[in-house]
Amino acid sequence: MGIMRLGGVKIRCLDLQASVDYYTKVIGFEVTGQDKDGNVYLKGWDEFDHHSLTLTPSNRAGLEHISLKVQSPDDLVFYRNKLEGAGVKVETLPAGSEMGMGEALWFEDPGGHWVKMYAEMEQVGTKVGALNPDPWPPGLQGIGAPRLDHILLAAEDAQKSTDFYMHLLDFWMSERLVTKNGDLIAAWLFRTNTVHDIAIIAGPQGKMHHFSFLLDDWNEIRKAADVIAMNDVKIDIGPTRHGISRGLTIYFFDPSGNRNETFAGGYMPFPDSPVITWTEDEIGRGIFFFQRELNEAFTTVFT
Amino acid sequence: MGIMRLGGVKIRCLDLQASVDYYTKVIGFEVTGQDKDGNVYLKGWDEFDHHSLTLTPSNRAGLEHISLKVQSPDDLVFYRNKLEGAGVKVETLPAGSEMGMGEALWFEDPGGHWVKMYAEMEQVGTKVGALNPDPWPPGLQGIGAPRLDHILLAAEDAQKSTDFYMHLLDFWMSERLVTKNGDLIAAWLFRTNTVHDIAIIAGPQGKMHHFSFLLDDWNEIRKAADVIAMNDVKIDIGPTRHGISRGLTIYFFDPSGNRNETFAGGYMPFPDSPVITWTEDEIGRGIFFFQRELNEAFTTVFT
Amino acid sequence: MGIMRLGGVKIRCLDLQASVDYYTKVIGFEVTGQDKDGNVYLKGWDEFDHHSLTLTPSNRAGLEHISLKVQSPDDLVFYRNKLEGAGVKVETLPAGSEMGMGEALWFEDPGGHWVKMYAEMEQVGTKVGALNPDPWPPGLQGIGAPRLDHILLAAEDAQKSTDFYMHLLDFWMSERLVTKNGDLIAAWLFRTNTVHDIAIIAGPQGKMHHFSFLLDDWNEIRKAADVIAMNDVKIDIGPTRHGISRGLTIYFFDPSGNRNETFAGGYMPFPDSPVITWTEDEIGRGIFFFQRELNEAFTTVFT
Amino acid sequence: MGIMRLGGVKIRCLDLQASVDYYTKVIGFEVTGQDKDGNVYLKGWDEFDHHSLTLTPSNRAGLEHISLKVQSPDDLVFYRNKLEGAGVKVETLPAGSEMGMGEALWFEDPGGHWVKMYAEMEQVGTKVGALNPDPWPPGLQGIGAPRLDHILLAAEDAQKSTDFYMHLLDFWMSERLVTKNGDLIAAWLFRTNTVHDIAIIAGPQGKMHHFSFLLDDWNEIRKAADVIAMNDVKIDIGPTRHGISRGLTIYFFDPSGNRNETFAGGYMPFPDSPVITWTEDEIGRGIFFFQRELNEAFTTVFT
Repeated sequence: MGIMRLGGVKIRCLDLQASVDYYTKVIGFEVTGQDKDGNVYLKGWDEFDHHSLTLTPSNRAGLEHISLKVQSPDDLVFYRNKLEGAGVKVETLPAGSEMGMGEALWFEDPGGHWVKMYAEMEQVGTKVGALNPDPWPPGLQGIGAPRLDHILLAAEDAQKSTDFYMHLLDFWMSERLVTKNGDLIAAWLFRTNTVHDIAIIAGPQGKMHHFSFLLDDWNEIRKAADVIAMNDVKIDIGPTRHGISRGLTIYFFDPSGNRNETFAGGYMPFPDSPVITWTEDEIGRGIFFFQRELNEAFTTVFT
Repeated sequence: MGIMRLGGVKIRCLDLQASVDYYTKVIGFEVTGQDKDGNVYLKGWDEFDHHSLTLTPSNRAGLEHISLKVQSPDDLVFYRNKLEGAGVKVETLPAGSEMGMGEALWFEDPGGHWVKMYAEMEQVGTKVGALNPDPWPPGLQGIGAPRLDHILLAAEDAQKSTDFYMHLLDFWMSERLVTKNGDLIAAWLFRTNTVHDIAIIAGPQGKMHHFSFLLDDWNEIRKAADVIAMNDVKIDIGPTRHGISRGLTIYFFDPSGNRNETFAGGYMPFPDSPVITWTEDEIGRGIFFFQRELNEAFTTVFT
Repeated sequence: MGIMRLGGVKIRCLDLQASVDYYTKVIGFEVTGQDKDGNVYLKGWDEFDHHSLTLTPSNRAGLEHISLKVQSPDDLVFYRNKLEGAGVKVETLPAGSEMGMGEALWFEDPGGHWVKMYAEMEQVGTKVGALNPDPWPPGLQGIGAPRLDHILLAAEDAQKSTDFYMHLLDFWMSERLVTKNGDLIAAWLFRTNTVHDIAIIAGPQGKMHHFSFLLDDWNEIRKAADVIAMNDVKIDIGPTRHGISRGLTIYFFDPSGNRNETFAGGYMPFPDSPVITWTEDEIGRGIFFFQRELNEAFTTVFT
Repeated sequence: MGIMRLGGVKIRCLDLQASVDYYTKVIGFEVTGQDKDGNVYLKGWDEFDHHSLTLTPSNRAGLEHISLKVQSPDDLVFYRNKLEGAGVKVETLPAGSEMGMGEALWFEDPGGHWVKMYAEMEQVGTKVGALNPDPWPPGLQGIGAPRLDHILLAAEDAQKSTDFYMHLLDFWMSERLVTKNGDLIAAWLFRTNTVHDIAIIAGPQGKMHHFSFLLDDWNEIRKAADVIAMNDVKIDIGPTRHGISRGLTIYFFDPSGNRNETFAGGYMPFPDSPVITWTEDEIGRGIFFFQRELNEAFTTVFT
């Protein structure tokens, strides 16, 4: 089967407590544990695994690593072989490298991002349970985001990173942004039936542009914008729509300056879906369909 | 990879023209072809394959067959072997058994429904195209449903049918409804990251309860209800919410009495998601979360 | 100027504590006071006057009276004269007949409902305040209804009651439901630019059909339905749409059996708007646009 | 009774045909007539009067006049006296000064805007009719705006203009924006139960900031933004929320550069509502609640 989803991200925080406050009170995630190294683990109310977001104290913002969950331990064997066969150096992390996580593979993508691949994680369960559940739990904080959605990674060579995720990790491409000459500027890649689990954009090696939380619909986007504003969280742009992905979105910054997104909408891509191509002259409309031009922060701030 | 989605359904119609009018003007699908046997092929605006709905003239309503699309011709070989290994009789249909369709497998499920499995279909493209597309096309008719979503099949032995789809066709279970004794009344099965591509309910062998069109959100459900009412289409129930699947829904009938659904909402299940169990004493709330009881038509009308 | 709005309703409750719990936890109103007779006063978060809902202990459900707020004490003089001139007996209630209320007129309408008319009430303020306010307050309970909207009164002679409100109290008519012979079955009357502040329906004298809380939109209606279901509150019908008023609605019952409604949508009527007429043969579609037929409870339960 | 609503606006257009195309295909108004002077009259689908928008050819953009509809010819007499008593020069325009309009008063407000006051206009009727109507008509173009909502007028002396509308024309104030010293920067004034029918802002005398079309809710705002973008109409800002008025909004420009708005949301103000005060230090949040700062175009472009 292979990779099921973007299982988690580990994010560096300048002020851990401020970040925990923000991700619980504004985003609405809940803390599920803290380890002896000070890492704080969080999950959305509709996620059943132990965590999808790890906050780690640091003197700079940014992405520590992404985590990809595969369906079974056999997949770990399969991908170790496939990666090593392609010359990628793969380490094995014993169970417990994160709270509740089983054995994991550890490798670097061509864009300079570290990737953890794992098959097992302790299940905490969603907040509504698995027996005659209500559709949502009362008392959610802030935005009340149900789950982690995707991440946008920067890479000096977007084509090389895209090839890595497609050829070695079996991602499919839903959309791409290309120059006049057909060179790849950005790619939207999926394993689930959503427009992207991981996207790649040409940019500073090893950096992240944003990671995103899933919301139900445009109305939840409006509520999120209200919550963001009421909490004096800095908005980058939105609410708006992406031309690329059709997604409905807000970009904003966590207390360390890491860019967050709330994302809703989009459509269902499949492995046999024609790849949608955006040409560079339509980049404004592709990125922000309503504004039809990029704002400066969007193109310059990476962490 | 295996099965990507419910690729299509073939539906019997008492009055073909009335049905074509209905599925185009009310549902908002478009006709993509008609073959020499009088079958009319239709697709939603956001589907790229030639068709997902086939209407065939008949003297009774009901389901002719479902179609499952696999990723590659290799999958056809794989599933032929797997099915035959389990004693299922599998025929091969040459390319062209439906307009634009490649070679297909043809077999019966334990519930008495015929299944077509295919890997190739001519691509017509979505209505917004694959180059710098708008998020939706202007001028949609009626509900403007973007795509087919799922089907609910009745089977005398719901457990046996469920086992067939799970063990032989590699579906996963998101939710199930069980009796006090733990016997299966109904199962919600998926291959995509949606709550169900196929659901099975204990009921009259070979019959269909409904098939469903995907909508974006609760607001599109409201608009669909308006369109349904303005067109004097008979509503079974809704707009309401399912407890099972969390889906937002309307049930209504096509001109032949086949039950249609518009479905939005739900959540993202994965192969490792805990199965959600509904107990029979909560069946009312499970099926119709707001009404908390079943209406008579819902439990008695199958075609 | 005259009557500004339906200022309040006083409702009889079989179990006062159960009712207070319900109107605070499910409807989301807040208690603003209790007087020595045991009356409990409540208001919505977006209302500035002391209360719009009074709960009074009783051995039967139903409406005690409605309250109409006029713009100034001069209006009380004006309407006393106008009512008495038409032979209506008008009493004067001294300030304090309800907590925070100024002097009031007290009279009976032809349908057997008692009406209080007042010009002054202590202002408590909305929950967001009047200085640089947020658009809504965090931490609302349940449905979080911002305000009281309207009431539907039954009257043996609907025409007579309608004439009373239109000719003596200067209401305008937005819509009406008439028999084949043109006799009035029901009338929707307004003083604000909403479809109805008071509606009249032919039915048991002195009884109430429902009173209604305003919600923002269809999405809030969906949330309200979830809350109602999660709290095991009995739904009469909905979410659905009214043909009459275009309103989006749910009907449900408080713990004493008084029918509540949440209402959103509609349109803006004006004194010069043509009256919209519904004919009896379209009553189903007029009342419940989606179902196009009345349910039994709707036509038989009055309190 | 007095003024019922902002009945209409007359707008100057550089290219009449381009403007007619825009207001019909993008805004979704319909043309109801053209007079011998080349003025084109339009209305929204949910308006019953002959027109609410008049387009007039000109070599510059801007507002020609606003029209206020009063309830009866007596109101014209009343306001003529009141205005003249305050030293305002009032002319009488005979019936037919616009297509379908009765006799009108004609005067200038202190901000240099011309005002027409009228009591009678031919009724064309809404697009759904007044007999058993559907909630909305199929086949609307573009945004499909149901009606004109409000206008924001600039005035050198905002206080003086505000006094004029409040003291002479009996408007009420819902919200105001004031300097540190309490001087009025802007005022939101109403006659209907909406936050504003007319707003006044300190700015270039005789100019208009924008006029606005009413939409149902945040979802219609999203659809409007899609339509605006698909039609390459220049967006000023939005979709966003106003802190002031709580309204959900998009600002954009017609082909002549006149600023349009689509407005939804808000709340119900009454004559006895406490005035909400915004202080200058919160102006960003007051105008654009999500961005919390003004964009340059918003503060500089008047027509």
